[in-house]
Amino acid sequence: MNAPGTFTLGPADGRARTGRLSTAHGDVETPIFMPVGTLGTVKSLCPTDLRDLKAQIILGNTYHLYLRPGDDLIARLGGLHKFMAWDGPILTDSGGFQVFSLSGLRQIAEEGVTFASHIDGSRHLFSPEKVISIQRNLGSDIMMVLDECVPYGADRAYTEKSLGLTTRWARRCREAHPAGDRGQLLFGIVQGGFFKDLRAKSAEEIIGVGFDGYALGGLSVGESRNEMYDILDDAAPLLPAERPRYLMGVGAPRDLLAGMAAGIDMFDCVLPTRNARNGTLFTSLGRVNIKRAEYRDDDTPLDPNCPCYACRTFSKAYLRHLYIAKELLSYRLNTLHNLTFFSVMMERAREAIREGRFAVFRAEMEALYPETDEGKA
Amino acid sequence: MNAPGTFTLGPADGRARTGRLSTAHGDVETPIFMPVGTLGTVKSLCPTDLRDLKAQIILGNTYHLYLRPGDDLIARLGGLHKFMAWDGPILTDSGGFQVFSLSGLRQIAEEGVTFASHIDGSRHLFSPEKVISIQRNLGSDIMMVLDECVPYGADRAYTEKSLGLTTRWARRCREAHPAGDRGQLLFGIVQGGFFKDLRAKSAEEIIGVGFDGYALGGLSVGESRNEMYDILDDAAPLLPAERPRYLMGVGAPRDLLAGMAAGIDMFDCVLPTRNARNGTLFTSLGRVNIKRAEYRDDDTPLDPNCPCYACRTFSKAYLRHLYIAKELLSYRLNTLHNLTFFSVMMERAREAIREGRFAVFRAEMEALYPETDEGKA
Repeated sequence: MNAPGTFTLGPADGRARTGRLSTAHGDVETPIFMPVGTLGTVKSLCPTDLRDLKAQIILGNTYHLYLRPGDDLIARLGGLHKFMAWDGPILTDSGGFQVFSLSGLRQIAEEGVTFASHIDGSRHLFSPEKVISIQRNLGSDIMMVLDECVPYGADRAYTEKSLGLTTRWARRCREAHPAGDRGQLLFGIVQGGFFKDLRAKSAEEIIGVGFDGYALGGLSVGESRNEMYDILDDAAPLLPAERPRYLMGVGAPRDLLAGMAAGIDMFDCVLPTRNARNGTLFTSLGRVNIKRAEYRDDDTPLDPNCPCYACRTFSKAYLRHLYIAKELLSYRLNTLHNLTFFSVMMERAREAIREGRFAVFRAEMEALYPETDEGKA
Repeated sequence: MNAPGTFTLGPADGRARTGRLSTAHGDVETPIFMPVGTLGTVKSLCPTDLRDLKAQIILGNTYHLYLRPGDDLIARLGGLHKFMAWDGPILTDSGGFQVFSLSGLRQIAEEGVTFASHIDGSRHLFSPEKVISIQRNLGSDIMMVLDECVPYGADRAYTEKSLGLTTRWARRCREAHPAGDRGQLLFGIVQGGFFKDLRAKSAEEIIGVGFDGYALGGLSVGESRNEMYDILDDAAPLLPAERPRYLMGVGAPRDLLAGMAAGIDMFDCVLPTRNARNGTLFTSLGRVNIKRAEYRDDDTPLDPNCPCYACRTFSKAYLRHLYIAKELLSYRLNTLHNLTFFSVMMERAREAIREGRFAVFRAEMEALYPETDEGKA
């Protein structure tokens, strides 16, 4: 087994590339999509299900786990892997994004960000040191630095001031977690909003601190697809080629393809799991809204090309019935299916890159998922 | 394979008895507890889960399936077994109990019972012929006759009048479904409220019609445990010894033991599945309310003697976390566990009967589950 943090690049196709990232809980083939398991569970699924659908790494949310059940408790019980019985790699975010999107009153200061819990309104401080301490308690394989996710529409002055704070917080995170400590990797986050020169400045500063991998933050925050792709194409190559690159919070098929084309290695998004619970299903024949009346009598599988249990076992008519009746099994089967679709799509993308036909694969998938902006995650 | 309806008695211990009932979808070892799959799914579980926990037969609700997705639809799609991908035996009730407990306005007449759907208020008629037609559409292995479930507290005059109607409806059901037709069995239901002589009268009349098995209905409707046991002990022996006896809607461990002691072979109840979703779990060490603070840090399994996936994989602390966070996985793991507990308990009961130590087994279980009336299903 390679030392955690070892990143070996495989064949590339244009800027799209394959690789293998080693962690303390195993290797991850890139490009990879990471299912989100906010509260120590990928909603409705068991760890065995995640293995079955070939999930290689999952994500946990620091903000949520800190509030409930608490990182101290998880540490006492042996860490997040043991707690949730998932022995594969786990990436945790820093909680910064949730503080900005979920919590009530929040105040940003040099020390950190003070916020009110969305559960009970209690006040908390996330400092760079605190979010590292939480993630060390969780025992995640890949930790993220605290950053300020600049809201869409922020002006240049605000964005520049903010990226300075993000850099200083990144340095404090690095100091709180020396490179290689405990086998837990630490990734930096590049901000800079929608100003290309500020993205370059942020990238230079964050790379200067030195991390095991680098993320692009502050995208998919309300901008149009074209705006996102413009920044993505410009900023991805600024990240060191020899380290994994992570596009945070992005997950529509079309966006994953654009990210891979720009040289991104890692993605996460609630889109496949949240859409599953809303009855929107991804298939090899295009998107299916399972509640539609046309499926009432449809005894064919949801996706004849899908290897998941739901597609091998049930008809669209049954899946529609479960969804209409709000049956618990609906959420489970839909989630199993959507995550299987994403897993297979990423496996096919890796094959296409290795075989030098990524552009063709991308065009095929984009024809199936020609998302417009209202379809964004 | 034996012809559907073949019922072979095995060793007995006092009035408690073992047996094997053959159906068109396989044999069922009795005494048996049947998990309830109201809408074509045992809530939160897959058919593979039911196999894993050794469920031998499950129950579907005619009232619910008639309203949604509709028995015509299920028939067009090949029947309930195919629709829900469960190839084991299925028993369906007649819908009568749900009409009385769930629907709004209802009018009982000789023809049948008219009721308003609890979903959209639409008016429907369940006649004896209609509920047989629905159950034939569903393709259930064991169908139940339409009966009037007399409310607790009904007086003698009402109860006697009602059992006459139940008998006439039973005859019409039998005429609508000749013995042996399609391999679908038909069970009669004995009413008579809490009047022993009326129970005897109803039993005589229903047995006179002739069915593949006989159920006691109208118990667990609000009476005390002692009242129920009094009727049970008196009425169970009135049912033919050579046919399966079914105590409808009863499912607390103590009541199952009392039923088996009285010579009952089949039980169903939402108790283990509904309690699972409410966080009340049955274990070999007694009842556990998983939301209690005492389990916050408890890294031991829910039940060290349980073979289920939840007990083999997770701690009480994790199960508590899922429950408190209202995570979908909580419902699934709790349901898996409770149904496994009931499955193992019934298997142990059959062994105890075969080995002539049922009284000892019953006393052990009653010590663990000394239910008082407020604990009733």
